[in-house]
Amino acid sequence: MSPQVQSTSPERASRKLVVMKFGGTSVGTIDRIRNVARRCLAVSKAGNDVVVIVSAMSGETNRLLKMAHEFGEIPDAREMDALAATGEQVTAALTALAIHQQGGDARSLLGHQVRVLTDNAFTKARIKTIDGTKIGEVLREGRIAVVAGFQGVDDQGNITTLGRGGSDTSAVAIAAAINADVCEIYTDVDGVYTTDPNVCPLARKIKKISYEEMLELASLGAKVLQIRSVEIAMKYGVPVHVRSSFSDVEGTLVTSEEGFSSGEMEQLSVAGVAYDKNEAKLTMLGVQDQPGVVAKIFGALADGNISVDMIIQNIGTGESPQKSATDVTFTVTKADLPRAKAIIAKVGAEVGCRDVVIDDGIVKVSIVGMGMRSHAGIAARMFQILASEGINIQAISTSEIKVSCIISAKYTELAVRALHTGFGLDRKPEEENHPSSEK
Amino acid sequence: MSPQVQSTSPERASRKLVVMKFGGTSVGTIDRIRNVARRCLAVSKAGNDVVVIVSAMSGETNRLLKMAHEFGEIPDAREMDALAATGEQVTAALTALAIHQQGGDARSLLGHQVRVLTDNAFTKARIKTIDGTKIGEVLREGRIAVVAGFQGVDDQGNITTLGRGGSDTSAVAIAAAINADVCEIYTDVDGVYTTDPNVCPLARKIKKISYEEMLELASLGAKVLQIRSVEIAMKYGVPVHVRSSFSDVEGTLVTSEEGFSSGEMEQLSVAGVAYDKNEAKLTMLGVQDQPGVVAKIFGALADGNISVDMIIQNIGTGESPQKSATDVTFTVTKADLPRAKAIIAKVGAEVGCRDVVIDDGIVKVSIVGMGMRSHAGIAARMFQILASEGINIQAISTSEIKVSCIISAKYTELAVRALHTGFGLDRKPEEENHPSSEK
Repeated sequence: MSPQVQSTSPERASRKLVVMKFGGTSVGTIDRIRNVARRCLAVSKAGNDVVVIVSAMSGETNRLLKMAHEFGEIPDAREMDALAATGEQVTAALTALAIHQQGGDARSLLGHQVRVLTDNAFTKARIKTIDGTKIGEVLREGRIAVVAGFQGVDDQGNITTLGRGGSDTSAVAIAAAINADVCEIYTDVDGVYTTDPNVCPLARKIKKISYEEMLELASLGAKVLQIRSVEIAMKYGVPVHVRSSFSDVEGTLVTSEEGFSSGEMEQLSVAGVAYDKNEAKLTMLGVQDQPGVVAKIFGALADGNISVDMIIQNIGTGESPQKSATDVTFTVTKADLPRAKAIIAKVGAEVGCRDVVIDDGIVKVSIVGMGMRSHAGIAARMFQILASEGINIQAISTSEIKVSCIISAKYTELAVRALHTGFGLDRKPEEENHPSSEK
Repeated sequence: MSPQVQSTSPERASRKLVVMKFGGTSVGTIDRIRNVARRCLAVSKAGNDVVVIVSAMSGETNRLLKMAHEFGEIPDAREMDALAATGEQVTAALTALAIHQQGGDARSLLGHQVRVLTDNAFTKARIKTIDGTKIGEVLREGRIAVVAGFQGVDDQGNITTLGRGGSDTSAVAIAAAINADVCEIYTDVDGVYTTDPNVCPLARKIKKISYEEMLELASLGAKVLQIRSVEIAMKYGVPVHVRSSFSDVEGTLVTSEEGFSSGEMEQLSVAGVAYDKNEAKLTMLGVQDQPGVVAKIFGALADGNISVDMIIQNIGTGESPQKSATDVTFTVTKADLPRAKAIIAKVGAEVGCRDVVIDDGIVKVSIVGMGMRSHAGIAARMFQILASEGINIQAISTSEIKVSCIISAKYTELAVRALHTGFGLDRKPEEENHPSSEK
């Protein structure tokens, strides 16, 4: 198909290799899958090689996991993956069929067919290598390659999944492996905003953002792009274009700082305000204040493949140094909470923990920006803004380009809006936004 | 698990390798999957090695195919298989989880993991070889192996399916490959009956039946066991026990004739009466009556992977031998009818076919029995019985152990009951049947 297209149109711009990734909402119905097929065919007919990565139809993964949870709270992870991987397999086959129906040619490929080799950390596997051979074959035959996202295979041939949002990771990793010109992430929002527009109506769409900023925004809950996918994009220099499946407007380009031409981005100290309600806080009371104790706790959590976000340890108290005790507080995702509790119950007994207090009514609010590196006093300004709204800060963590505060969840919207205004991010009334067609 | 069980119970009968296959109705709900897990664990705990083969949850394959058909009447076969194979993958993972929940240990295995190597006739692939290594590994680790039925993989790594009812074929082929002691087929009926009990209330359950008779009964629509699975069972001498998932009563043992001890089976000339409403009749009018023409027609159908059942060709008529024409009638399954029509439309033009008449209001009624080989006049008796009910016979085919007649579908029940009574198959009022708990 494609070679002919090229030869009959010598004036056409040079052939590009484009990876297009569509999330669950974008493939949520038969009609939306038709729309995806149309978009892919348009890019293909314009003289490009197209690789499509698809997620499970929205709701499907939850339907599958709900069935699995009928068989226990913590079902066997290997079987969970064999189960969950069917969601993307269904979408990949249907998308290929839709492309066929519209007169194109396509082949679906699964994780083990591509092959996306991962470790064997079931339900949250990490990609080791991707073999581009099979995709290359399909493209050379003049076909569109439709790859099931989210899934891989370990070296024993077991099916693995990359964890929630793993299709973004699949897309960027595949783009890197086949040296694609761009990785387009199609989603139900039309780009990355300075904050959640549902919370702050004056949020602005960001035209270009650096990998580093995007990393912090993604990890902090902007929910547009999975953090691991940004890490991989940064590592391999894959330009990522986040845009809407439902409109043709340009979205947000995530690229290296060198990719910015001067003056393209307003030099604000803060690029965005993020929040994450998906964490829970655990406090272990009366833990022995001795060397090795904290290592034991967080070692056990790491062995359980649980990512810990913030850690706060208070100064030890006790009648004697030998009997000194301390409280250890940390946050994990709510999804990991049941497993974290089970691990903590076990390790807690060994380190003298008196009780565990759990608080899942918290939110993490963060400000992010490359500009922070050259602007002093940003963190202090953040605390000031929160304090002026009467919001108590329960924990703080900082990095070069972000400051995060844990506060009570009830203050989420108030805090986000105050920070957005306070750091000069509000859209001017005369500025036009292109909100997604779904918003 | 299992070696310990054996060593603590030296008096236990010798360890057996049991393949247990559960159909779509038997795994149709979460509760039924629990039931399947229970049965498998019971067999395992009794000191046996257990391999479970599962179908898709009832309704699931249809749900998937319905989505596919949104993208055209004859969707791409390769993608259909990638899609349909997810049904069994889901059941296999859920069954393994159910076994885990009940304290057992299990591993799900897919067609490409086992590996069930097939040809690449998508949607109706045939098994070439089965590697028993992976299953053996899982069993040696003391686990139950749960294998997704219906699916395989071709030598290019493409996912294939074995066609409707293919899970029976998977089960028997796997039983043969691992040299299992028995292949138990669990279904929603409790065995093979002399005819359909829904049509004939006096139908009897058959305790033992030969592979040959079962082959004819299965192919003719008894719907208990897929014909290809019986062929494989016969070829490799795998004893097949057809029984109910919902009760513990013995079902029907399908085995070689040598497996019958004398007197175990009443020496009736006819073992059963079958009917098949799933065929359609095509008549090509005015086809050239010349050498090679019929070969062309059926060669084209064979190339299209369409199985033709009965073929009737009338004597040619025409003004001159050169212009002599004939009518060719044949039957195919209703599922193959759209594709058969498309092929016939094409080849028909080349062989002078004037018109094609399609009749899908037919039924094939058959009598089957090893006894026919030694009893003369069985066919004549069948025609007599049908004639005495005023039923017109449209076509006849015979083999060593069966006679089939095509009649109008409206006579189905009448014909079946008349033949069942006429050949002395009716259950005596005092005989007890064990109808399945679902009937």
